[in-house]
Amino acid sequence: MIKVGIIGAGRIGKVHCESIMRYVKNATVKAIADPFMSDETKKWAQDMGVNEIYTDYHRILEDKEIGAVLICSSTDTHSLISLEAIAAGKHIFCEKPIDHDVFKILKVKQALEKSRIKYQVGFNRRFDHNFRGAQAAVAAGKIGELNILKICSRDPDAPPVSYIKVSGGIFLDMTIHDFDMVRFMSGAEVEEVFAYGAVLVDPAIGEAGDIDTAVISMKLTNGAIAVIDNCRRASYGYDQRVEALGSLGQVAITNDTESSAVISDKDGVHSEKPLHFFLERYMDAYVAEITEFIDCIVNDKPVNVGIDCGLQPVLIALAAKKSLDCGLPVKVSDIAKKYGL
Amino acid sequence: MIKVGIIGAGRIGKVHCESIMRYVKNATVKAIADPFMSDETKKWAQDMGVNEIYTDYHRILEDKEIGAVLICSSTDTHSLISLEAIAAGKHIFCEKPIDHDVFKILKVKQALEKSRIKYQVGFNRRFDHNFRGAQAAVAAGKIGELNILKICSRDPDAPPVSYIKVSGGIFLDMTIHDFDMVRFMSGAEVEEVFAYGAVLVDPAIGEAGDIDTAVISMKLTNGAIAVIDNCRRASYGYDQRVEALGSLGQVAITNDTESSAVISDKDGVHSEKPLHFFLERYMDAYVAEITEFIDCIVNDKPVNVGIDCGLQPVLIALAAKKSLDCGLPVKVSDIAKKYGL
Amino acid sequence: MIKVGIIGAGRIGKVHCESIMRYVKNATVKAIADPFMSDETKKWAQDMGVNEIYTDYHRILEDKEIGAVLICSSTDTHSLISLEAIAAGKHIFCEKPIDHDVFKILKVKQALEKSRIKYQVGFNRRFDHNFRGAQAAVAAGKIGELNILKICSRDPDAPPVSYIKVSGGIFLDMTIHDFDMVRFMSGAEVEEVFAYGAVLVDPAIGEAGDIDTAVISMKLTNGAIAVIDNCRRASYGYDQRVEALGSLGQVAITNDTESSAVISDKDGVHSEKPLHFFLERYMDAYVAEITEFIDCIVNDKPVNVGIDCGLQPVLIALAAKKSLDCGLPVKVSDIAKKYGL
Amino acid sequence: MIKVGIIGAGRIGKVHCESIMRYVKNATVKAIADPFMSDETKKWAQDMGVNEIYTDYHRILEDKEIGAVLICSSTDTHSLISLEAIAAGKHIFCEKPIDHDVFKILKVKQALEKSRIKYQVGFNRRFDHNFRGAQAAVAAGKIGELNILKICSRDPDAPPVSYIKVSGGIFLDMTIHDFDMVRFMSGAEVEEVFAYGAVLVDPAIGEAGDIDTAVISMKLTNGAIAVIDNCRRASYGYDQRVEALGSLGQVAITNDTESSAVISDKDGVHSEKPLHFFLERYMDAYVAEITEFIDCIVNDKPVNVGIDCGLQPVLIALAAKKSLDCGLPVKVSDIAKKYGL
Repeated sequence: MIKVGIIGAGRIGKVHCESIMRYVKNATVKAIADPFMSDETKKWAQDMGVNEIYTDYHRILEDKEIGAVLICSSTDTHSLISLEAIAAGKHIFCEKPIDHDVFKILKVKQALEKSRIKYQVGFNRRFDHNFRGAQAAVAAGKIGELNILKICSRDPDAPPVSYIKVSGGIFLDMTIHDFDMVRFMSGAEVEEVFAYGAVLVDPAIGEAGDIDTAVISMKLTNGAIAVIDNCRRASYGYDQRVEALGSLGQVAITNDTESSAVISDKDGVHSEKPLHFFLERYMDAYVAEITEFIDCIVNDKPVNVGIDCGLQPVLIALAAKKSLDCGLPVKVSDIAKKYGL
Repeated sequence: MIKVGIIGAGRIGKVHCESIMRYVKNATVKAIADPFMSDETKKWAQDMGVNEIYTDYHRILEDKEIGAVLICSSTDTHSLISLEAIAAGKHIFCEKPIDHDVFKILKVKQALEKSRIKYQVGFNRRFDHNFRGAQAAVAAGKIGELNILKICSRDPDAPPVSYIKVSGGIFLDMTIHDFDMVRFMSGAEVEEVFAYGAVLVDPAIGEAGDIDTAVISMKLTNGAIAVIDNCRRASYGYDQRVEALGSLGQVAITNDTESSAVISDKDGVHSEKPLHFFLERYMDAYVAEITEFIDCIVNDKPVNVGIDCGLQPVLIALAAKKSLDCGLPVKVSDIAKKYGL
Repeated sequence: MIKVGIIGAGRIGKVHCESIMRYVKNATVKAIADPFMSDETKKWAQDMGVNEIYTDYHRILEDKEIGAVLICSSTDTHSLISLEAIAAGKHIFCEKPIDHDVFKILKVKQALEKSRIKYQVGFNRRFDHNFRGAQAAVAAGKIGELNILKICSRDPDAPPVSYIKVSGGIFLDMTIHDFDMVRFMSGAEVEEVFAYGAVLVDPAIGEAGDIDTAVISMKLTNGAIAVIDNCRRASYGYDQRVEALGSLGQVAITNDTESSAVISDKDGVHSEKPLHFFLERYMDAYVAEITEFIDCIVNDKPVNVGIDCGLQPVLIALAAKKSLDCGLPVKVSDIAKKYGL
Repeated sequence: MIKVGIIGAGRIGKVHCESIMRYVKNATVKAIADPFMSDETKKWAQDMGVNEIYTDYHRILEDKEIGAVLICSSTDTHSLISLEAIAAGKHIFCEKPIDHDVFKILKVKQALEKSRIKYQVGFNRRFDHNFRGAQAAVAAGKIGELNILKICSRDPDAPPVSYIKVSGGIFLDMTIHDFDMVRFMSGAEVEEVFAYGAVLVDPAIGEAGDIDTAVISMKLTNGAIAVIDNCRRASYGYDQRVEALGSLGQVAITNDTESSAVISDKDGVHSEKPLHFFLERYMDAYVAEITEFIDCIVNDKPVNVGIDCGLQPVLIALAAKKSLDCGLPVKVSDIAKKYGL
């Protein structure tokens, strides 16, 4: 039985806590820490059966009984807490992105090299039943050699501009999941990126120095071409799809809905919108990723979504950002070189 | 916090136990009883946090702390245990059917009349997201007045003949869910039934005195016509659909799949089969029905799927059986009269 | 080159005329006859290149150059004109039904027996791309042995009561196509019929002695069970589907739409209604049936949809009518016996 | 009644001839010309009712009775014949592309400016029921302001390398239709293009100096971003789709199939592949475009798909070609400037 400490009691920290308490065999949440621990959150933690509630996460790192931590705090603290947790000998599940600064990610990577610590990055979409279905088909050779990979990723609505300002920009905040999906689906790396971006949803996003709509095309190391389209607004809900064309065929996925009910009336044939947002769409995926993390610890298996899966999408995102800024295609290796990679 | 006792530790008893321990607020499973309690089941119960494990369910009925029982034992014991549990003052969730013998169901009904006990029957399909989506559309008037109701209900494969022999026949064992769905979807009662049946899947089922394929048509009290088609074998999986035509339009549902992945290749366009069987398809529905049961107790709400929901489908099933036997349409009221109803 | 005469210049006569002039190789329309030949129709005929326009169809029968006639007049004249055309040695395409009176159909059948005349009945639905796709799958054994056959057939709106009064009733007017589809899809005959009917669309239809909503179940000679659901009103358009379950799987078809455009917005996901009515849905099927008729003549092939395909659905319809009247299942052989069959 | 001459009796010339003879009111084909007029083609023309059959198309241009010509000859002759036909005062339907050389297109444009001649370019996809459905939704404001436009366009298999060599390259041969679709769907012009291309289908295509797989992203003058993905091979058939995201929602289309039959069996749920290639998919669109052309002549309406619709996609294609060659985004205006535009 692995005892887990959760650092950060925000939305995603709570999701993981509930996942572990309800579904994950061999694991329980012993403690949770958050500098802003409201009474409501305290009550929620107690209801979940978590009795150790701290404002200082170091209490978790110091607890010898705790074998693994989940870092669910704000992005700017991920790398520092990762380093501390490594020093404390804890296995680590860290929410994405590890950091916007590649040097900080590399420090974590370096620290891990000397350890036997399991380090998993929170790319939940890899555990979604639909993306898994598509990836399994590609990996099984059902579409042959990959030729074209298309990822559609759209939020139901733009976040507040205050969030945008600290988000690191659309590529590091939103597209980063899609860059991870490109790697997951293709089994290849991104060689070069070209990005078109626009402010079409909210001018305030543009004033904050970001874009809200983008089409990013990529050359992959296996010769295939990939393209992502992003928008901060899809009035019909959270739209997350992938389509892969290969030498033998195509695989594509659609979104999930609340029910399959279809109403036909004088105005047309109406089915339901996609599930509204990521918590609805990916709830099962969150359980699956934590289950795999605990399984890696308990059975000493290598982590599938490790530190490199945390690093590469950041490099691609930085290449995309540079491409957008200068209006030219950018090689990921040119970004990597800056960091001695 | 309601303490629950589970009587019967078979497949469905375990499902409900896990539902309560994981998802149902305000409830916990205090004890579980089964005359054949294997070591494996004992271990499973302990892992779930259930420490009181009995072979005699009376231990549960005698426990003053236990406020509600789930009757998940074999069908022939449902009505007796119901009566004992009523006498013991427990709230009751009883798996369907309450009994194949209407008199026994009526005894339970009678006993309940003198009590304030909550009695819910396990028609899980009413809690399925797809059926709920369709029913909600009908209830909201989106298709206007109901004209035609079609229910498709097919198992992936026939059960063993040993099961068939004690099942009470296809109408009481399998179609009973569909009769309940007719009532749920239409908000009306079945007036008359006409059944065609055949043995097309397995001759041994015919030798056992049952059929494996049926089409049952019905006149409803609201004037609509309903039809159910049943088969014990659908090579592509568990097929559970409904389609309702009304004066303003139609609502229809399809099955759930593991993922939405669609593969297009030189042979065609391929999507996944429906989820294989009821445990996969209705897992969330099982949680929802128990959640509602506990909610009715805690907040003293009337039970939606009560004793009459347990009684009516049995009357309809008996009418269908008689129709099949004599090759004529049969009024449900003629069956009811036999029992003084 | 077969020269064709068309008897009856109503809606369907015009459809066939245009089909022949535009698409059917080896055939041309030489003459058209209708007792009520409007100026508009005359102009239409001339535009189509048909110069011989008569009010008396005997002019067509007398024309030695004309090798084939299409009987598109009112139903009550079909059998008489058939007999006259047989006597005149013309090949015959006769719209369905041949007659409501079995004796009259039998006279035609008898007259044909002594001749080498090709006689095709206008069951256009057999030539529809969707129904053909489903039938081909069944015939190719893709679903194994047929177990359950379901046909859905609904008109967008009820015809005027004046039409209902001379229609012969829903079973002879509307369901007759579906009875033909049961035979086409199953490759078997209908043994017994049980019909439920109701007046749910328009009370005036009931006052005219007919019903507007029906569910008809049938036992087939191959052991399978079939069921048809009919309604004179489907607010979302012409709804024509079939679903066949067999030992190895299921085949099902859906309706055609004007375009595949799907709009997703804040209210849901919207696709188009089925094509509105039979002329839109079956336009290509009308061409295909006439093409096959001409091909049978030119290449002296046996007719696929011959006199027996015209006879059997009438017998089944009469059985359905009797079932509805007396509330009991009716054997088709009992109807047939009345006519010495 | 417009008398039409067809120049070029290849596949597409025949399609147009049949369209006119069968479906287009107010028009007939008086003559057809092709330097290589086989006996088979002659017979086909006679069967269609075309009696004037020439090897020299000037015979058509000289015929005073002929009011309109269809230029269906090889691409390299389009502009010259256009000029001659303009000089002869004929209305012109010219297959796409008018030429690979912008100067030659401009000469045609110049010649047209002094005339009242109707000049339509053969972008058939604008007349396809699915693309029309999507475009109508966009034009009607159903998705609000356009944000992202995605076009998928894949051939079932690569043409012979001999064809590739004279095709002008994938952008002028295949993508040109998609560039036209970008303009049609968006109602805007392409400002800048960035193309990724690869040889993934057939190395011989690469040896011939072309690519077979491409992803082309574009900035549009209305601020939206568009992306096209092309492949010369889609094992599952001709794949032609569009998806448009706007401020209020999304519209998307799928492909057509032979029938809607869906077979469910133990291996999955199988539907049909898209129609195999352009003649199957766009047969109705070919009729519609010629019908509109004749209508513009007869009713003196402005042509919708005129010379500029022929010019712009060539400019975009040249920009895409340059982008691929130099690995940089290219402004369409920079291409246009070269030609004094």
